[in-house]
Amino acid sequence: MSTTVETPNQISSATAITADALLSHWQEHRRLTRRVINAFPEDKFFTYSIGGMRPFAKLVWEMIEIAAPGINGIVSGEWKPRKGLPAFEKDTMPATRAEILKIWDAITDEINEQWPKIAPGRFFEMEAAFGQYENTIFSSILYFVDNEIHHRGQGYVYLRSLGIEPPAFYDRS
Amino acid sequence: MSTTVETPNQISSATAITADALLSHWQEHRRLTRRVINAFPEDKFFTYSIGGMRPFAKLVWEMIEIAAPGINGIVSGEWKPRKGLPAFEKDTMPATRAEILKIWDAITDEINEQWPKIAPGRFFEMEAAFGQYENTIFSSILYFVDNEIHHRGQGYVYLRSLGIEPPAFYDRS
Repeated sequence: MSTTVETPNQISSATAITADALLSHWQEHRRLTRRVINAFPEDKFFTYSIGGMRPFAKLVWEMIEIAAPGINGIVSGEWKPRKGLPAFEKDTMPATRAEILKIWDAITDEINEQWPKIAPGRFFEMEAAFGQYENTIFSSILYFVDNEIHHRGQGYVYLRSLGIEPPAFYDRS
Repeated sequence: MSTTVETPNQISSATAITADALLSHWQEHRRLTRRVINAFPEDKFFTYSIGGMRPFAKLVWEMIEIAAPGINGIVSGEWKPRKGLPAFEKDTMPATRAEILKIWDAITDEINEQWPKIAPGRFFEMEAAFGQYENTIFSSILYFVDNEIHHRGQGYVYLRSLGIEPPAFYDRS
Protein backbone atom coordinates (compact mmCIF):
# COMPACT_ATOMS: atom_id res chain seq x y z
CA MET A 1 0.00 0.00 0.00
CA SER A 2 1.34 3.39 -0.96
CA THR A 3 0.41 6.50 0.99
CA THR A 4 1.91 8.94 -1.49
CA VAL A 5 -0.52 11.07 -3.43
CA GLU A 6 0.49 11.91 -6.98
CA THR A 7 1.05 15.65 -7.26
CA PRO A 8 2.99 16.45 -10.44
CA ASN A 9 3.11 20.20 -9.91
CA GLN A 10 3.77 20.43 -6.21
CA ILE A 11 5.91 18.60 -3.74
CA SER A 12 3.68 18.93 -0.67
CA SER A 13 2.84 15.25 -0.37
CA ALA A 14 5.96 13.80 -1.98
CA THR A 15 7.95 11.44 0.19
CA ALA A 16 10.75 13.21 2.02
CA ILE A 17 11.59 10.54 4.60
CA THR A 18 10.79 6.83 4.49
CA ALA A 19 9.91 4.60 7.43
CA ASP A 20 13.31 2.96 7.21
CA ALA A 21 15.10 6.31 7.30
CA LEU A 22 13.04 7.50 10.27
CA LEU A 23 14.09 4.41 12.23
CA SER A 24 17.74 5.10 11.33
CA HIS A 25 17.31 8.74 12.39
CA TRP A 26 16.07 7.65 15.83
CA GLN A 27 18.70 4.95 16.34
CA GLU A 28 21.59 7.15 15.18
CA HIS A 29 20.64 9.70 17.82
CA ARG A 30 20.32 6.95 20.45
CA ARG A 31 23.87 5.85 19.66
CA LEU A 32 25.19 9.38 20.17
CA THR A 33 23.22 9.78 23.41
CA ARG A 34 24.70 6.51 24.67
CA ARG A 35 28.19 7.94 24.12
CA VAL A 36 27.25 11.13 25.98
CA ILE A 37 26.00 9.01 28.91
CA ASN A 38 29.39 7.30 29.00
CA ALA A 39 31.30 10.59 28.79
CA PHE A 40 30.14 11.57 32.30
CA PRO A 41 32.03 10.51 35.42
CA GLU A 42 29.66 8.09 37.18
CA ASP A 43 28.96 10.39 40.14
CA LYS A 44 28.43 13.51 38.01
CA PHE A 45 26.01 11.59 35.80
CA PHE A 46 23.67 11.32 38.80
CA THR A 47 24.42 14.56 40.64
CA TYR A 48 25.77 17.34 38.42
CA SER A 49 23.35 20.14 37.57
CA ILE A 50 23.32 23.74 36.34
CA GLY A 51 20.63 26.33 37.12
CA GLY A 52 18.45 23.95 39.11
CA MET A 53 17.99 21.60 36.15
CA ARG A 54 17.84 17.83 36.45
CA PRO A 55 21.10 15.85 36.44
CA PHE A 56 21.81 14.08 33.13
CA ALA A 57 20.74 10.68 34.55
CA LYS A 58 17.24 12.05 35.13
CA LEU A 59 17.11 13.53 31.62
CA VAL A 60 18.16 10.12 30.25
CA TRP A 61 15.52 8.44 32.40
CA GLU A 62 12.93 10.71 30.79
CA MET A 63 14.16 9.60 27.35
CA ILE A 64 13.76 5.98 28.48
CA GLU A 65 10.27 6.62 29.83
CA ILE A 66 9.33 8.06 26.45
CA ALA A 67 11.09 5.61 24.12
CA ALA A 68 10.01 2.32 25.67
CA PRO A 69 6.28 2.90 26.07
CA GLY A 70 6.56 5.10 22.95
CA ILE A 71 7.53 2.35 20.52
CA ASN A 72 4.80 0.15 21.98
CA GLY A 73 2.21 2.88 21.56
CA ILE A 74 3.31 3.58 18.01
CA VAL A 75 2.96 -0.06 17.03
CA SER A 76 -0.07 -1.10 19.09
CA GLY A 77 -2.04 2.09 19.70
CA GLU A 78 -1.90 1.29 23.42
CA TRP A 79 -0.19 4.09 25.33
CA LYS A 80 0.40 2.39 28.64
CA PRO A 81 3.43 3.63 30.51
CA ARG A 82 5.97 0.91 31.30
CA LYS A 83 3.89 -1.62 29.38
CA GLY A 84 5.23 -4.98 30.50
CA LEU A 85 8.72 -4.13 29.33
CA PRO A 86 11.77 -5.77 30.88
CA ALA A 87 13.12 -2.22 31.12
CA PHE A 88 10.61 -1.52 33.85
CA GLU A 89 10.82 -4.55 36.11
CA LYS A 90 11.50 -1.99 38.79
CA ASP A 91 9.47 1.18 38.81
CA THR A 92 12.28 3.55 39.73
CA MET A 93 15.45 4.79 38.10
CA PRO A 94 18.38 2.45 38.79
CA ALA A 95 21.23 3.75 40.95
CA THR A 96 24.05 2.79 38.58
CA ARG A 97 24.91 3.82 35.04
CA ALA A 98 25.49 0.17 34.08
CA GLU A 99 21.88 -0.68 34.94
CA ILE A 100 20.59 2.33 33.01
CA LEU A 101 22.69 1.38 29.97
CA LYS A 102 21.33 -2.18 30.15
CA ILE A 103 17.79 -0.78 29.95
CA TRP A 104 18.88 1.64 27.19
CA ASP A 105 20.22 -1.24 25.09
CA ALA A 106 17.11 -3.36 25.67
CA ILE A 107 14.98 -0.51 24.35
CA THR A 108 17.26 -0.08 21.34
CA ASP A 109 16.62 -3.75 20.47
CA GLU A 110 12.91 -3.37 21.20
CA ILE A 111 12.63 -0.44 18.78
CA ASN A 112 14.39 -2.43 16.03
CA GLU A 113 12.18 -5.48 16.64
CA GLN A 114 8.88 -3.59 16.84
CA TRP A 115 9.45 -1.07 14.02
CA PRO A 116 8.67 -3.45 11.10
CA LYS A 117 5.25 -4.09 12.69
CA ILE A 118 4.16 -0.49 12.10
CA ALA A 119 1.39 -0.68 9.55
CA PRO A 120 1.81 1.31 6.31
CA GLY A 121 -0.19 4.50 6.67
CA ARG A 122 0.09 4.36 10.47
CA PHE A 123 2.52 7.31 10.42
CA PHE A 124 -0.29 9.63 9.34
CA GLU A 125 -2.89 8.56 11.88
CA MET A 126 -3.88 11.13 14.50
CA GLU A 127 -3.59 9.76 18.00
CA ALA A 128 -2.99 11.07 21.51
CA ALA A 129 0.49 9.81 22.38
CA PHE A 130 0.54 8.71 26.02
CA GLY A 131 -3.17 9.56 26.02
CA GLN A 132 -2.28 13.24 26.12
CA TYR A 133 -0.49 14.60 23.07
CA GLU A 134 -2.79 14.54 20.06
CA ASN A 135 -0.70 14.45 16.90
CA THR A 136 0.16 12.33 13.89
CA ILE A 137 2.30 9.32 14.72
CA PHE A 138 5.22 10.61 12.63
CA SER A 139 5.11 13.92 14.54
CA SER A 140 5.14 12.07 17.85
CA ILE A 141 8.20 10.07 16.74
CA LEU A 142 9.98 13.27 15.68
CA TYR A 143 9.04 14.77 19.04
CA PHE A 144 10.60 11.83 20.92
CA VAL A 145 13.85 12.29 18.96
CA ASP A 146 13.80 16.09 19.24
CA ASN A 147 13.30 15.85 23.00
CA GLU A 148 16.33 13.56 23.20
CA ILE A 149 18.48 15.96 21.12
CA HIS A 150 17.30 18.88 23.27
CA HIS A 151 18.20 17.26 26.59
CA ARG A 152 21.40 15.73 25.22
CA GLY A 153 22.48 19.23 24.14
CA GLN A 154 22.02 20.23 27.77
CA GLY A 155 24.26 17.32 28.76
CA TYR A 156 26.93 18.80 26.47
CA VAL A 157 26.88 21.99 28.55
CA TYR A 158 27.20 19.96 31.76
CA LEU A 159 30.21 18.16 30.28
CA ARG A 160 31.89 21.36 29.02
CA SER A 161 31.27 22.95 32.40
CA LEU A 162 33.03 19.94 33.98
CA GLY A 163 35.99 20.44 31.63
CA ILE A 164 35.11 17.30 29.62
CA GLU A 165 35.13 17.25 25.79
CA PRO A 166 31.76 15.83 24.66
CA PRO A 167 31.46 13.27 21.83
CA ALA A 168 31.31 14.79 18.34
CA PHE A 169 27.74 15.80 17.48
CA TYR A 170 28.07 14.61 13.88
CA ASP A 171 29.27 11.08 14.75
CA ARG A 172 26.23 8.78 14.82
CA SER A 173 28.11 5.53 14.19
CA MET B 1 5.84 11.49 -9.82
CA SER B 2 5.74 9.23 -6.82
CA THR B 3 8.92 8.14 -5.11
CA THR B 4 7.28 5.51 -2.94
CA VAL B 5 8.05 1.91 -3.79
CA GLU B 6 5.23 -0.56 -3.24
CA THR B 7 6.25 -3.00 -0.52
CA PRO B 8 3.19 -4.87 0.76
CA ASN B 9 5.02 -6.94 3.37
CA GLN B 10 7.46 -4.45 4.75
CA ILE B 11 7.37 -0.81 5.68
CA SER B 12 10.99 0.07 4.89
CA SER B 13 10.24 2.36 1.97
CA ALA B 14 6.76 3.50 2.99
CA THR B 15 6.33 7.23 3.41
CA ALA B 16 6.84 8.34 7.00
CA ILE B 17 7.23 12.07 6.44
CA THR B 18 6.14 14.13 3.46
CA ALA B 19 7.92 17.15 1.99
CA ASP B 20 5.22 19.40 3.39
CA ALA B 21 5.62 17.95 6.89
CA LEU B 22 9.40 18.28 6.76
CA LEU B 23 9.05 21.98 5.95
CA SER B 24 6.66 22.38 8.90
CA HIS B 25 9.10 20.50 11.15
CA TRP B 26 11.88 22.95 10.26
CA GLN B 27 9.76 26.08 10.57
CA GLU B 28 8.17 25.01 13.87
CA HIS B 29 11.63 24.66 15.35
CA ARG B 30 12.67 28.02 13.90
CA ARG B 31 9.69 29.64 15.65
CA LEU B 32 10.71 28.16 19.00
CA THR B 33 14.34 29.20 18.49
CA ARG B 34 13.18 32.74 17.73
CA ARG B 35 11.41 32.82 21.11
CA VAL B 36 14.53 31.55 22.87
CA ILE B 37 16.56 34.34 21.20
CA ASN B 38 14.08 36.84 22.62
CA ALA B 39 14.16 35.29 26.10
CA PHE B 40 17.76 36.46 26.62
CA PRO B 41 18.58 39.89 27.98
CA GLU B 42 20.24 41.72 25.05
CA ASP B 43 23.71 41.82 26.63
CA LYS B 44 23.65 38.19 27.81
CA PHE B 45 22.62 37.08 24.33
CA PHE B 46 26.01 38.27 23.07
CA THR B 47 28.22 37.62 26.09
CA TYR B 48 26.92 34.88 28.40
CA SER B 49 28.73 31.56 28.25
CA ILE B 50 29.26 28.37 30.27
CA GLY B 51 32.33 26.11 30.12
CA GLY B 52 34.07 28.13 27.42
CA MET B 53 31.23 27.57 24.95
CA ARG B 54 30.04 30.18 22.45
CA PRO B 55 27.47 32.76 23.58
CA PHE B 56 23.95 32.08 22.28
CA ALA B 57 24.26 34.80 19.61
CA LYS B 58 27.15 32.91 18.02
CA LEU B 59 25.22 29.64 18.14
CA VAL B 60 22.32 31.42 16.44
CA TRP B 61 24.68 32.87 13.86
CA GLU B 62 25.82 29.33 13.08
CA MET B 63 22.17 28.32 12.55
CA ILE B 64 21.82 31.28 10.16
CA GLU B 65 24.98 30.38 8.29
CA ILE B 66 23.58 26.87 7.81
CA ALA B 67 19.94 27.68 7.04
CA ALA B 68 20.39 30.43 4.45
CA PRO B 69 22.99 28.84 2.17
CA GLY B 70 21.39 25.49 3.12
CA ILE B 71 17.99 26.13 1.55
CA ASN B 72 19.73 27.45 -1.57
CA GLY B 73 21.91 24.37 -1.81
CA ILE B 74 18.95 22.06 -1.30
CA VAL B 75 17.00 23.69 -4.10
CA SER B 76 19.79 24.51 -6.56
CA GLY B 77 22.57 22.03 -5.82
CA GLU B 78 24.92 25.00 -5.45
CA TRP B 79 26.46 25.04 -2.00
CA LYS B 80 27.91 28.52 -1.95
CA PRO B 81 28.08 30.10 1.47
CA ARG B 82 26.21 33.40 1.75
CA LYS B 83 25.01 33.01 -1.83
CA GLY B 84 23.73 36.45 -2.76
CA LEU B 85 21.30 36.50 0.13
CA PRO B 86 20.10 39.76 1.65
CA ALA B 87 20.94 38.09 4.96
CA PHE B 88 24.59 38.41 4.15
CA GLU B 89 24.95 41.94 2.85
CA LYS B 90 27.53 42.23 5.56
CA ASP B 91 29.92 39.37 6.11
CA THR B 92 29.96 39.53 9.88
CA MET B 93 27.49 38.89 12.68
CA PRO B 94 25.47 42.03 13.49
CA ALA B 95 25.98 43.69 16.86
CA THR B 96 22.30 43.91 17.83
CA ARG B 97 19.63 41.28 18.37
CA ALA B 98 17.18 43.29 16.25
CA GLU B 99 19.48 43.00 13.23
CA ILE B 100 19.95 39.28 13.80
CA LEU B 101 16.18 38.77 14.08
CA LYS B 102 15.68 40.68 10.82
CA ILE B 103 18.02 38.26 9.09
CA TRP B 104 16.34 35.31 10.86
CA ASP B 105 12.94 36.38 9.55
CA ALA B 106 14.25 36.94 6.02
CA ILE B 107 15.58 33.38 6.01
CA THR B 108 12.26 32.03 7.33
CA ASP B 109 10.55 33.64 4.33
CA GLU B 110 13.27 32.43 1.98
CA ILE B 111 12.80 28.83 3.14
CA ASN B 112 9.03 29.05 2.57
CA GLU B 113 9.51 30.58 -0.88
CA GLN B 114 12.21 28.19 -2.04
CA TRP B 115 10.80 24.94 -0.61
CA PRO B 116 8.17 24.32 -3.32
CA LYS B 117 10.97 24.43 -5.92
CA ILE B 118 12.54 21.25 -4.53
CA ALA B 119 12.14 18.66 -7.25
CA PRO B 120 10.29 15.43 -6.34
CA GLY B 121 12.90 12.78 -5.69
CA ARG B 122 15.49 15.42 -4.76
CA PHE B 123 15.26 14.40 -1.09
CA PHE B 124 16.91 11.06 -1.89
CA GLU B 125 19.81 12.40 -3.95
CA MET B 126 23.28 11.99 -2.46
CA GLU B 127 25.17 15.27 -2.39
CA ALA B 128 27.93 16.90 -0.36
CA ALA B 129 26.14 19.65 1.56
CA PHE B 130 28.37 22.72 1.67
CA GLY B 131 30.75 20.72 -0.54
CA GLN B 132 31.77 18.72 2.53
CA TYR B 133 29.09 16.55 4.06
CA GLU B 134 28.11 13.73 1.69
CA ASN B 135 24.59 12.61 2.52
CA THR B 136 21.08 12.38 1.15
CA ILE B 137 19.33 15.74 0.95
CA PHE B 138 16.68 14.71 3.50
CA SER B 139 19.44 13.71 5.94
CA SER B 140 21.14 17.05 5.48
CA ILE B 141 17.86 18.85 6.21
CA LEU B 142 17.33 16.76 9.35
CA TYR B 143 20.91 17.57 10.33
CA PHE B 144 20.27 21.32 9.99
CA VAL B 145 17.23 21.03 12.27
CA ASP B 146 18.95 18.68 14.74
CA ASN B 147 21.90 21.06 15.01
CA GLU B 148 19.47 23.89 15.81
CA ILE B 149 17.69 21.81 18.50
CA HIS B 150 21.07 20.80 19.97
CA HIS B 151 22.37 24.36 20.28
CA ARG B 152 19.01 25.74 21.37
CA GLY B 153 18.98 23.16 24.18
CA GLN B 154 22.29 24.66 25.26
CA GLY B 155 20.66 28.08 25.24
CA TYR B 156 18.06 26.68 27.66
CA VAL B 157 20.88 25.90 30.13
CA TYR B 158 22.26 29.43 29.74
CA LEU B 159 18.80 30.85 30.48
CA ARG B 160 18.21 28.58 33.50
CA SER B 161 21.65 29.46 34.79
CA LEU B 162 20.66 33.15 34.48
CA GLY B 163 17.48 32.46 36.47
CA ILE B 164 15.27 32.90 33.40
CA GLU B 165 12.43 30.48 32.58
CA PRO B 166 12.89 29.37 28.94
CA PRO B 167 9.98 29.13 26.46
CA ALA B 168 8.08 25.80 26.59
CA PHE B 169 9.82 23.20 24.42
CA TYR B 170 6.53 21.80 23.15
CA ASP B 171 5.14 25.13 21.95
CA ARG B 172 5.95 25.51 18.25
CA SER B 173 3.21 27.98 17.39
